[in-house]
Amino acid sequence: MRTFIIKANRAHTKADFSLTDLPGTSGRIDLLCRFLNSAFLLSHGFRKNVRVWLSLYGPPNPPKAIRFEGQRMRPKTLNPDELSTAKLIIKALKAGENLREPGKELEVLPGIYVSKLTFEDIVRRTLRGSALYYLHEEGKPIEKVHFPANVAFVLGDHEGLSREDEAFLAGIAEKVSVGKKSYLASHVVAYVNIHLDSLTPPP
Amino acid sequence: MRTFIIKANRAHTKADFSLTDLPGTSGRIDLLCRFLNSAFLLSHGFRKNVRVWLSLYGPPNPPKAIRFEGQRMRPKTLNPDELSTAKLIIKALKAGENLREPGKELEVLPGIYVSKLTFEDIVRRTLRGSALYYLHEEGKPIEKVHFPANVAFVLGDHEGLSREDEAFLAGIAEKVSVGKKSYLASHVVAYVNIHLDSLTPPP
Repeated sequence: MRTFIIKANRAHTKADFSLTDLPGTSGRIDLLCRFLNSAFLLSHGFRKNVRVWLSLYGPPNPPKAIRFEGQRMRPKTLNPDELSTAKLIIKALKAGENLREPGKELEVLPGIYVSKLTFEDIVRRTLRGSALYYLHEEGKPIEKVHFPANVAFVLGDHEGLSREDEAFLAGIAEKVSVGKKSYLASHVVAYVNIHLDSLTPPP
Repeated sequence: MRTFIIKANRAHTKADFSLTDLPGTSGRIDLLCRFLNSAFLLSHGFRKNVRVWLSLYGPPNPPKAIRFEGQRMRPKTLNPDELSTAKLIIKALKAGENLREPGKELEVLPGIYVSKLTFEDIVRRTLRGSALYYLHEEGKPIEKVHFPANVAFVLGDHEGLSREDEAFLAGIAEKVSVGKKSYLASHVVAYVNIHLDSLTPPP
């Protein structure tokens, strides 16, 4: 089982942005769409052993969390292109507009949930069942890490994690690196998935 | 120097498709946009040592070839999101609408060229300066390949290469694999780029 968590500090927490200008109007929801693509999709296939948490902290109503549960999602729900994925995020944000209770998750579509969970809530829930890794260029080379059956990876968005977030992760997440350069989150997830596939047994 | 060549059998060769429904109307130009993203982009950076050839064979006027030359492109030309990249492809297709001469390339923007070059033309030109590899799940594991300074990779689109294309490549391109599964072209390119970065010296 693989979990990917991304903290998106600018991603809008209301569906108030334009589908035809995601980079300019949404706080980089386009980046989250490519992240989901890399986490779940194979050529003509879908990874059911993946969970994704989008942790949104942009205006106007942070935090919002959207969970994608591969085991329960219908494979045809998620398509490769950005716009159809952005529409799923919009659907979740609209459904979650009046959420107040911090712990409650609303199921928007099979396997897709919206909530007011914080980044810390997500990480704590994840720690119960998975070994946690923070993907960072200064981490241990991924080829040298021995992964257990259940793994979870935290990534930052285009601005990276804040010092507070990094302090929170210190001690509970091992820093792991796919290389010395700073890569786009979607490229890192594609690399991690393909690397994990090569292990015996793959997580 | 790294070259990535994709043969897109259905990709429209005229700008007759809808930006808001690329998967449904363009013969999967959306896939080519993600391919370019993976080939060129770093987090807040651009790979100048990359060349991409899109070899388009869809209706109504195949073939069309679009070349992206990292060395000459302005880094801000290519952005991560699909729609802005699709607009570059549209610009190239419009500029190339009346092209007749098979060998002539038109420069559409700095470092971006459109032509009537065939897939075979592109491969033959590439062979002059680079070792050629065909990315295929049954190839030699990429970790075991010794790459020279100039490398070129051929990939198929969501339908893969035809038997004729594979027959053409046999003997001139070594089959290389990033894993046993069938991955999306954009994920393969992200993986190859990150893998090549780890070599000393990197191609």
